[in-house]
Amino acid sequence: MGQMRAVTAPTPGGVDALQVVDRPVPDPAPGEVLIRVTAAGINRADLLQRQGHYDPPPGSTDVLGLECSGDIVSVGEGVTDLQPGAHVCALLTGGGYAEYVSVPAGQVATVPLGISLVESGGLMEVASTVWSNVFMMGKLQHGETLLVHGGASGIGTMAIQLGKAFGATVVVTVGSAQKAEFCRELGADVVINYREQDFAEEMKAAGLQADVILDIIGAKYLAANISVLATAGRLVVIGLQGGIKAELNLGALLAKRAAVMATSLRARPTGEKAAIVSAMVAQVWPLITDGTVRPIIHATYPLDDVRLAHQVLEESSHTGKVLLTL
Amino acid sequence: MGQMRAVTAPTPGGVDALQVVDRPVPDPAPGEVLIRVTAAGINRADLLQRQGHYDPPPGSTDVLGLECSGDIVSVGEGVTDLQPGAHVCALLTGGGYAEYVSVPAGQVATVPLGISLVESGGLMEVASTVWSNVFMMGKLQHGETLLVHGGASGIGTMAIQLGKAFGATVVVTVGSAQKAEFCRELGADVVINYREQDFAEEMKAAGLQADVILDIIGAKYLAANISVLATAGRLVVIGLQGGIKAELNLGALLAKRAAVMATSLRARPTGEKAAIVSAMVAQVWPLITDGTVRPIIHATYPLDDVRLAHQVLEESSHTGKVLLTL
Repeated sequence: MGQMRAVTAPTPGGVDALQVVDRPVPDPAPGEVLIRVTAAGINRADLLQRQGHYDPPPGSTDVLGLECSGDIVSVGEGVTDLQPGAHVCALLTGGGYAEYVSVPAGQVATVPLGISLVESGGLMEVASTVWSNVFMMGKLQHGETLLVHGGASGIGTMAIQLGKAFGATVVVTVGSAQKAEFCRELGADVVINYREQDFAEEMKAAGLQADVILDIIGAKYLAANISVLATAGRLVVIGLQGGIKAELNLGALLAKRAAVMATSLRARPTGEKAAIVSAMVAQVWPLITDGTVRPIIHATYPLDDVRLAHQVLEESSHTGKVLLTL
Repeated sequence: MGQMRAVTAPTPGGVDALQVVDRPVPDPAPGEVLIRVTAAGINRADLLQRQGHYDPPPGSTDVLGLECSGDIVSVGEGVTDLQPGAHVCALLTGGGYAEYVSVPAGQVATVPLGISLVESGGLMEVASTVWSNVFMMGKLQHGETLLVHGGASGIGTMAIQLGKAFGATVVVTVGSAQKAEFCRELGADVVINYREQDFAEEMKAAGLQADVILDIIGAKYLAANISVLATAGRLVVIGLQGGIKAELNLGALLAKRAAVMATSLRARPTGEKAAIVSAMVAQVWPLITDGTVRPIIHATYPLDDVRLAHQVLEESSHTGKVLLTL
């Protein structure tokens, strides 16, 4: 099918490492579908990959991008439930920053009614991450308290809305007054500006404990996170922005009968990703269609402005998702 | 009902801290049953309590003992499924080292067919601990690998047998050649003498990874345990014999999508204990009755020799359970 434009980072580094290159349009392998990309979400993991800190799994494309939306161009052998022309969004192991991407059919879902094809470009990674970590691994229950670090991020804004939709009290940390206001409007019950307040002290002062914590900080927050966990609480670490190694007090963990989990979506095998997507779509799509949950889009950039788009995430000044459009 | 003999440790310390004292026979509260004790299991937690390191939960008796067997003398208000005269065993929050103990009915089970009333005195804590941690929390699956530290202990000998009964490969660590031989006879697939070999190195050399680890060591083994965890592995810490604080490498945990859980049975609320006992009895009792699983008894001592019994556990020379008989 000829050539397409795609973004790679052949030499790791800053935003200038990003290159728009020509690549052959992929062929859908058996079980895959080929998507013409309309929009692709930018994730913090893409920044790490660009910097050389998060290589794609073996066998994956070096084109960046963990989620996209678009329409199906063709389907590989054995794909019967998706047809060319369908408007879909997809969870990718890579390859979203491109005009075309091929992806296992189990990681593809029809765009939910009520939002646009562009808006759904940043939906799959975010919704699958929140669903798999907060609900499937963390097993958040109605009436429990969810603590989300980075409440104004794409993942944060989805976690706030899903936490509230499923009856939890939601506490978030953010880095500015503007983000705090936005999170409150989205439904967060308690918002803590970590630049001004110690989240653990604030929670203790308010008599709050977290049953589930969705954490992107890692080492720097480990002790504080455990200190605010409730009995039988679950700390789910999905990012290590605050470092990798920290002292763990197993006595404190045991006294709370608590668990520390760390996970990533990208490295999971195709079957697990499909199971997550399937469970997530069943629970989340109806909430999008009825307006309870909406994807929060900070800004969209054309493919040629991919360096600008990365710059926005790097500065952490965004609220919600940053998208590339094609 | 008058007085009974019971064991306490009013002044924490060595085995001499144990005192046989007179206490009033308890009255069964609503929902409780009063048991005349035939045998009581000795657990490592009892040694910690005697030393002043593991106080009973608020409101509990200071009489030691987390499990017993015996016959029901009377039942409290609202107990309809257990009758006086029944031979039972019980999971206790305390009070087993005594002639009588009162316990919520949900923590009591009829003695399984095929073993004696004395043998079942050390069954409930051990079987409930293994069931709740390895199967309910750790979710051990058929075909997975279970690593058990302290394979010759009461908990270890039960974990080996249940692991094998449910189709797992079982790896254990032990502290002597004699214990190694015993664990092999019980069905352990791989036995590592930690005094002579590094368990993590041995497992790596054998190409083994653990899906579930049942750990009593804590800090000292944290890094090595994580190094042998399989992808999506679960480390369940139930003891801290090797210390409380250790460095946790969250990057290593995240790369494996693994979990560190720490828990104790004693501090759980009555309802959770009842749910564990009920699930455990349904799965484990049939295996005892058909001979697949048997309680391993190292020795029995009369109540007056309670100091001797503690001495045996302190020296870690035992294989299986040490019991007090009344």
